[in-house]
Amino acid sequence: MVTGRQVESGAGPIRYGMVGGGQGAFIGAVHRIAARIDGEFELVAGALSSNPERAKASAAELGLDPERSYGTFAEMAKAEAKRPDGIEAVAIVTPNHMHWPAAKAFLEAGIHVICDKPLTSTLADAKKLAAAVEKSGKLFVLTHNYTGYPMIRHAREMVASGTLGDIRVIQAEYPQDWLTEKVEDTGSKQAAWRTDPKQSGAGGSTGDIGTHAYNLARFVSGLELDSLAADLDSFVAGRQLDDNAHVLLRFKPKGNEPGAKGMLWASQVAPGNENGLKLRIYGTRGGIEWVQADPNYLWYTPFGEPKRLITRGGAGSGPAAARVTRVPPGHPEGYLEGFANIYAEAARAIRAARNGGKIPNDVVFPTVQDGVEGVAFVEACVRSSKKNGAWTKL
Amino acid sequence: MVTGRQVESGAGPIRYGMVGGGQGAFIGAVHRIAARIDGEFELVAGALSSNPERAKASAAELGLDPERSYGTFAEMAKAEAKRPDGIEAVAIVTPNHMHWPAAKAFLEAGIHVICDKPLTSTLADAKKLAAAVEKSGKLFVLTHNYTGYPMIRHAREMVASGTLGDIRVIQAEYPQDWLTEKVEDTGSKQAAWRTDPKQSGAGGSTGDIGTHAYNLARFVSGLELDSLAADLDSFVAGRQLDDNAHVLLRFKPKGNEPGAKGMLWASQVAPGNENGLKLRIYGTRGGIEWVQADPNYLWYTPFGEPKRLITRGGAGSGPAAARVTRVPPGHPEGYLEGFANIYAEAARAIRAARNGGKIPNDVVFPTVQDGVEGVAFVEACVRSSKKNGAWTKL
Amino acid sequence: MVTGRQVESGAGPIRYGMVGGGQGAFIGAVHRIAARIDGEFELVAGALSSNPERAKASAAELGLDPERSYGTFAEMAKAEAKRPDGIEAVAIVTPNHMHWPAAKAFLEAGIHVICDKPLTSTLADAKKLAAAVEKSGKLFVLTHNYTGYPMIRHAREMVASGTLGDIRVIQAEYPQDWLTEKVEDTGSKQAAWRTDPKQSGAGGSTGDIGTHAYNLARFVSGLELDSLAADLDSFVAGRQLDDNAHVLLRFKPKGNEPGAKGMLWASQVAPGNENGLKLRIYGTRGGIEWVQADPNYLWYTPFGEPKRLITRGGAGSGPAAARVTRVPPGHPEGYLEGFANIYAEAARAIRAARNGGKIPNDVVFPTVQDGVEGVAFVEACVRSSKKNGAWTKL
Amino acid sequence: MVTGRQVESGAGPIRYGMVGGGQGAFIGAVHRIAARIDGEFELVAGALSSNPERAKASAAELGLDPERSYGTFAEMAKAEAKRPDGIEAVAIVTPNHMHWPAAKAFLEAGIHVICDKPLTSTLADAKKLAAAVEKSGKLFVLTHNYTGYPMIRHAREMVASGTLGDIRVIQAEYPQDWLTEKVEDTGSKQAAWRTDPKQSGAGGSTGDIGTHAYNLARFVSGLELDSLAADLDSFVAGRQLDDNAHVLLRFKPKGNEPGAKGMLWASQVAPGNENGLKLRIYGTRGGIEWVQADPNYLWYTPFGEPKRLITRGGAGSGPAAARVTRVPPGHPEGYLEGFANIYAEAARAIRAARNGGKIPNDVVFPTVQDGVEGVAFVEACVRSSKKNGAWTKL
Repeated sequence: MVTGRQVESGAGPIRYGMVGGGQGAFIGAVHRIAARIDGEFELVAGALSSNPERAKASAAELGLDPERSYGTFAEMAKAEAKRPDGIEAVAIVTPNHMHWPAAKAFLEAGIHVICDKPLTSTLADAKKLAAAVEKSGKLFVLTHNYTGYPMIRHAREMVASGTLGDIRVIQAEYPQDWLTEKVEDTGSKQAAWRTDPKQSGAGGSTGDIGTHAYNLARFVSGLELDSLAADLDSFVAGRQLDDNAHVLLRFKPKGNEPGAKGMLWASQVAPGNENGLKLRIYGTRGGIEWVQADPNYLWYTPFGEPKRLITRGGAGSGPAAARVTRVPPGHPEGYLEGFANIYAEAARAIRAARNGGKIPNDVVFPTVQDGVEGVAFVEACVRSSKKNGAWTKL
Repeated sequence: MVTGRQVESGAGPIRYGMVGGGQGAFIGAVHRIAARIDGEFELVAGALSSNPERAKASAAELGLDPERSYGTFAEMAKAEAKRPDGIEAVAIVTPNHMHWPAAKAFLEAGIHVICDKPLTSTLADAKKLAAAVEKSGKLFVLTHNYTGYPMIRHAREMVASGTLGDIRVIQAEYPQDWLTEKVEDTGSKQAAWRTDPKQSGAGGSTGDIGTHAYNLARFVSGLELDSLAADLDSFVAGRQLDDNAHVLLRFKPKGNEPGAKGMLWASQVAPGNENGLKLRIYGTRGGIEWVQADPNYLWYTPFGEPKRLITRGGAGSGPAAARVTRVPPGHPEGYLEGFANIYAEAARAIRAARNGGKIPNDVVFPTVQDGVEGVAFVEACVRSSKKNGAWTKL
Repeated sequence: MVTGRQVESGAGPIRYGMVGGGQGAFIGAVHRIAARIDGEFELVAGALSSNPERAKASAAELGLDPERSYGTFAEMAKAEAKRPDGIEAVAIVTPNHMHWPAAKAFLEAGIHVICDKPLTSTLADAKKLAAAVEKSGKLFVLTHNYTGYPMIRHAREMVASGTLGDIRVIQAEYPQDWLTEKVEDTGSKQAAWRTDPKQSGAGGSTGDIGTHAYNLARFVSGLELDSLAADLDSFVAGRQLDDNAHVLLRFKPKGNEPGAKGMLWASQVAPGNENGLKLRIYGTRGGIEWVQADPNYLWYTPFGEPKRLITRGGAGSGPAAARVTRVPPGHPEGYLEGFANIYAEAARAIRAARNGGKIPNDVVFPTVQDGVEGVAFVEACVRSSKKNGAWTKL
Repeated sequence: MVTGRQVESGAGPIRYGMVGGGQGAFIGAVHRIAARIDGEFELVAGALSSNPERAKASAAELGLDPERSYGTFAEMAKAEAKRPDGIEAVAIVTPNHMHWPAAKAFLEAGIHVICDKPLTSTLADAKKLAAAVEKSGKLFVLTHNYTGYPMIRHAREMVASGTLGDIRVIQAEYPQDWLTEKVEDTGSKQAAWRTDPKQSGAGGSTGDIGTHAYNLARFVSGLELDSLAADLDSFVAGRQLDDNAHVLLRFKPKGNEPGAKGMLWASQVAPGNENGLKLRIYGTRGGIEWVQADPNYLWYTPFGEPKRLITRGGAGSGPAAARVTRVPPGHPEGYLEGFANIYAEAARAIRAARNGGKIPNDVVFPTVQDGVEGVAFVEACVRSSKKNGAWTKL
């Protein structure tokens, strides 16, 4: 019943601000809860909406000092950088196309950035952002939140330590059903920007959820992608971006074995699937299987032995999971806890950076490079699909 | 993807203190996370341990003002009551036998109480506490946290609205395995007090987890217990309190139907069970089934129709669940979110009370009366078992 | 992909007859399929119905020689005993109250008996039948068919070999929903006799399914029951026999440990449950869990290790299961295969007896003694319930 | 508790013979059980092995008349055709490359053929066989046994009746793990021929299990394949045939909607998967999901409504399933029952043909055309993979 995790710290919370996330948004509230869970962050500033009325009302609702509720991110970056009690980090939770300009402004103002995925709406922006991070010397944390789940951390350790042997096959999928009908025409703000190429970029399901599945496969397997072959569809008439993606994957060889092969399926039109992210990895010595909707379980199937169900915090669950675990086995942790683990890792990194120190080795979070790769994945899918599924390098 | 819940409030957090919950404790940290998730509470004072060194260190770790880290709850109640910025509420998270004296002190100081379960270590104390609450006019919230799960709220609505017809059978169970061996002899603080009659009261598994199962059956079914027949065991040699409880239940009739019947099983010696709380209720028109480890699912089995799996926030999940839901369906919520819902309900009640107003009708939380009934349940189990399982009124 | 089982035998099928099981019956057809699966039996005679028309039509449908379609079991026993090609065994699949007279007739005619459960409708009949078996020297096989499932055989071996340590807790249940409404009034032949004390005996759900759950608990655990406390209900107005049974169990001590405790729940009024037979056994070193609807899986939970899912024929599934397995792991076997295993064991015993030999040690099937105990269980439940749940010896 | 199925027939069993299936074989015994379950077939002849010793011993074990145990299929076809009591049908259960010559011999002898899949080892043979069937006027039944499962029959009806709307996405998979290591070198007869191109044909996992997944997707969806893109691997060093296949699918449009898209994964090197055949189909109005290892369940997910679990024989399970169902809901049916349904359908067709009549409309079984298509699928996979996954017409 004891976890390995230090969930609270007496050093005082980290001051942070938020760009986007005003009333009617979804992911902004998730970031705020994730930031609050461990008491490591305090929200003190915001440019919560491009709509001034909504920005003001949202700030009031969150109890922000009206002075620190800004009309634009540019204004916010400039003003906060000057304050002695200015924010140390900013969370960017806007539609994709605004990630790059907003991130740029805060990085240049010397403020750490926590940013939602996908990194940007174009690969060109993504590369510029990576350069800007490099130049700034600030931290950049990409909220590929599924990497925060304890059982995913454990799975990654299992692969890294050779428990599964050489990896041969990776099956990743992320089906949803919420875009089965044309809800973007019915006033859903969430659906509207996600199906709009100007705000989302070239990928629909590929960008919104395919990047999560891809990132998770990479995170757990540690393998690099060589190339992919994609067949994208927009099943709903009039939809501009893909709502279903079938992708074949070829990973680069590692050591003597030939490279692993994989499949990735992302769909927003598969009725009955809410957020069906699932990862299966098979090697010469065993396999693993994990499902986001039931994240506290990890199937481990050593070849020639009975299947084992490893539970978060239970027997067989190791230190990598324990570091990011809050409650005993049998008490489920969920999406918000997994998301909060990204914030907890960010907090450790920010505190280390505060003191000019090195980020501890065991702090793990997705970076701007993961973000660049995610956008490259989306664009490669689109390119491959336009060439009738030709094999395409990232 | 939009939930019915208002998770944040601009009115400023509620100041609260904590009794117990210092280093080495388990449930204190859970309370603190639960209080933080929605940003409705701020921890500002504590009497975190009966050991002065540990109290001090724990307070520092939590960033408390050293002035407000107290040596005893009595001192804390007195001092905080005098401060203009004193706590509005206290969370009591000590071993059971301290609940009554601590709660008394704060109620008398005019401070709302949030208290862990079981209510007290004796029924006599429980009744005194109920009287003290009545006299004080303050709020008393008992953290039977499982009543906070959205699918449990929905299940309760289903029963109340007659969806299951007249209730006939209730099967409740809460098996664990952590006391399969005599860990109380190996330095586990958690195990030590839970198996010690002086700190826990007359019940072992009955008090620690049986009360949860009992409370949940009552909460969802709305039925009152008439009597029970119990067979308690202490399977581990030398253990003073029960570690396994088999209980038959007879509920009072409601309307024309004869009273429902039930079974309750609590165990701490059932290998493979982590926190296996499970509730099944069957009526003339249908049944439901819910498992704590997978709390986002509710099986609903209307008689003569296919089984339906209702998911939190998904189709078929109603407003009672939506009120206490934070993220979209398919993204799991867990133990901490369920626990946080008790705090969120407490916050709504406290804010209403602040303004001298009435607590809104839809605010639902376990009260001191539920606590009295829980302790009565434990003592009835012990009495029945001593009389060879004779049917015993609560 | 190789199983340990010898499914076919060149020695020629065993000639058998059937009493009951004509048109409109359920379990008779199941017995016939079970007898056919391995090609070990050939149906050559029958007294298929007490209704002469139905008996004749049923015999024709099954392709029986009209000469060997009898009007009564008495006539059949007499005639078959005289024939050089007479039946070697009879399957008795009538309502319960006819088991004893029919079995008596065939035993006295020197014919082996395979009989459906419960053994008889009264304990007095059961004891007489046991004496008749003893006197006859013939084989008597009781079709407690769930004992034929491979994973149940494996579970039994695990307990016997001490894998679970000393047994502490046994949870058995068999919920159904088909009698939720008063279907016995709607022309259902199955429901009519099962709810009629004259045909079924003193027990309703206790006799029809409670005996299965009880027998399975006994079979797997190897423990003997000391006493029980039962609370029986007839929830459906006007129903004469119990349709829900809540039973506490106390097993006799074995070795040094105190006796195991258990619960048994049988219900015919639990909507959503089709044939929800489930068995859980917990010992000092581990637990097991098995569900009839998914019979190819056995959960094994060694204390302090990850849960293991043993699959029929897969890794971790031992020789006791392999003996009664027909297809490779991952290809499900079901109810009929489990039932057929009872017939396969009967065939081995009958062939051994043919040659005057000893029944091989590894042949395992429920006997008349198990049947006596089952009826004793039913009557003890009824007695206990009438005495307000008093602890009652079998 | 009553099923729609007529399981027994008084008209006397159909005489059949078997080619292959002697000692050491796997699928032959499965066919024999399947043929026996309903009492519709009687095995009276065989050419059970190409090895004369083994053929003889196998025939003796099965109780065949020694005169009707033949050394070759050619001899058997000739001799049986002459006998007045000759076989009416033959079951061909040899390795793939022998299907065509054996089938030819029996068709030419005027004997119906029941044949294991894949149809042949080459597409050229498959086409010749289809022509031979056409010419012969005899029945040809291909044992794509998974089409016999009741819930698959029901799923097919759901799609056909438009319950799912227009089909958009089909996800089929059949992972196994038994060839994770090079067992073909260790004396496994099963592994040896399945990995030998001379006996199996061009496909390894594609032929052995990919054809099953493909056939099932076709059977349930009713859609025709337009083209595929395949990436095949032989992960185990030195293996000559594919042991993992990743295939993208494009179906032909049906009506106004664009054609459905799909994925198919077949693998013999995925540890933890025994026979993990799974089919998911999504349309504009709902989805379905079915898993072979748990075949009595069918998930049906109407868009915007709670998920429903349809159980074989339970509420929501329709007449197409009832026709091929033997036992009540909650009592599992398995692989052998599904396989037996193919034989039961064959029996109905053979009896109809006997009397020169028309095969009833509701008799459904895989035909030689399905077999041709399966071999075409295998060869298209191989061609596509050799062209680096180019889209390839069947």
